[in-house]
Amino acid sequence: MNSNREKMLAGELYQPWDPELVAARAAARVLMHAFNASAENSAERHELLGRILGSAQGEPYIESTFRFDYGFNIHVGRSFYANFDLLILDAAPVRIGDDCLIGPGVHIYTSTHPLDMGERVSTLESARPVTIGNGVWIGGRAVINPGVSIGDGAIIASGAVVTRDVPAFTLVGGNPARLIRQLETHPAAEPRNGPVPRP
Amino acid sequence: MNSNREKMLAGELYQPWDPELVAARAAARVLMHAFNASAENSAERHELLGRILGSAQGEPYIESTFRFDYGFNIHVGRSFYANFDLLILDAAPVRIGDDCLIGPGVHIYTSTHPLDMGERVSTLESARPVTIGNGVWIGGRAVINPGVSIGDGAIIASGAVVTRDVPAFTLVGGNPARLIRQLETHPAAEPRNGPVPRP
Amino acid sequence: MNSNREKMLAGELYQPWDPELVAARAAARVLMHAFNASAENSAERHELLGRILGSAQGEPYIESTFRFDYGFNIHVGRSFYANFDLLILDAAPVRIGDDCLIGPGVHIYTSTHPLDMGERVSTLESARPVTIGNGVWIGGRAVINPGVSIGDGAIIASGAVVTRDVPAFTLVGGNPARLIRQLETHPAAEPRNGPVPRP
Repeated sequence: MNSNREKMLAGELYQPWDPELVAARAAARVLMHAFNASAENSAERHELLGRILGSAQGEPYIESTFRFDYGFNIHVGRSFYANFDLLILDAAPVRIGDDCLIGPGVHIYTSTHPLDMGERVSTLESARPVTIGNGVWIGGRAVINPGVSIGDGAIIASGAVVTRDVPAFTLVGGNPARLIRQLETHPAAEPRNGPVPRP
Repeated sequence: MNSNREKMLAGELYQPWDPELVAARAAARVLMHAFNASAENSAERHELLGRILGSAQGEPYIESTFRFDYGFNIHVGRSFYANFDLLILDAAPVRIGDDCLIGPGVHIYTSTHPLDMGERVSTLESARPVTIGNGVWIGGRAVINPGVSIGDGAIIASGAVVTRDVPAFTLVGGNPARLIRQLETHPAAEPRNGPVPRP
Repeated sequence: MNSNREKMLAGELYQPWDPELVAARAAARVLMHAFNASAENSAERHELLGRILGSAQGEPYIESTFRFDYGFNIHVGRSFYANFDLLILDAAPVRIGDDCLIGPGVHIYTSTHPLDMGERVSTLESARPVTIGNGVWIGGRAVINPGVSIGDGAIIASGAVVTRDVPAFTLVGGNPARLIRQLETHPAAEPRNGPVPRP
């Protein structure tokens, strides 16, 4: 019999009020509050981020107020920058590539609930991973829904609500987000090697 | 002659900078700041919530940062759960049924302003109640506008901007929100008897 | 050769991690944190706002949490009121007229990034000014994009994502925002002379 944590990570229905998961979220909250109380770009904040995230390349830069459920399911590549009020519900893995820019107030969800009210009120829920490629720019206030994959070089317009996969090198926007235009695949569109310069 | 508070609750134009209403909001702010500074799921937080809300069944669970105007106009049923950053402008009553789930960053508005600029700059405003049934799931970042009623078992998609009533057992989404599909009225869709297990 | 600050204000590509700009944002953060920690409507808060904003008429009233990049590029007219969680990315000037009402959670952006991934990962960016007329009401959760001008007396519906200029005395809404209706140009639609009454 699998634990609720195993079911959660496997995308099956699980009980989020299971004591093991409640304890994992409580531990994450302690780190979350410490992160948000720390000074921007301080050594303390970078050290906390290292303990919060599942993995990171280089030194990710995330503004306050950063919110998440577990933290350990969040993986970010090199030169990651997220503006104010990033929220990630990371019951399933959220994998973000190199050189991504996240505008203010972006929400990334993996958690979902049963559509059937009778099932839903049991409080069982499930989660689907989100995958974001290299060089993606997610505009301010965008919402990324559970299960979505975003290809390299894509741009999500501000305020977009993304419910389906986004092909590489496309610009999408609206609610629900739809293709606005193809973007050029610039030959120099290689992941940059350096981190975001430390302010 | 009715007071501004009476006019506000009656849905008439009223002056929100009336000293009685300013004092009511100032008192609510003290409780709001105390709530948001309290530890998740602490006895202190539950006690504060009891003083903030107009009424509640069982033990509602509301994450930080919870924002509101008065608090006393908010009524929630059993097993209420709201994720991060719930905001309710409760100049008029906001009545929420049993077993409702609210995603992160949901805004519920009752306050509105005159469409005519000449009237609007007088700072007079009015408010219309919001009613939410049992077993409703409001997805993250949804906005519920003044005067809206949402039926039992309905689901509001993430990022939806709800400007009209939502029939029971329907899924709506988009901006403005429109019908996406009918949901099954499951025979077991009875309000659950227990509260959300305390984490 | 122009400095990055000069390029930023001229709408050209600039490097935001330039030490002069990093220092300007760091100084703004100190004031931002002090503002958000101060008591609503306190003399301290009003004094801080005077130091944050580029210019203001009368006594603007801005609720917590107010977020911005520099502050000095924000100019507001008389009787300005903004509800909770106003965010302004003010790399370019944001000019707001008299008698404007801003709902909760409004985001105003001037910053933008290259559409080409190869250029974008250089971290160079640019900014375009936002101009908002007199007597404008921006509904809750609206997003105002870089370069947008909003005419006198206009109303932006809650949750709207404004990507184009908004003519005076029109109501727009949706994502992207489109014309919903013309509004009457009331003969009495003159900017009000007094400030918002101090609560």
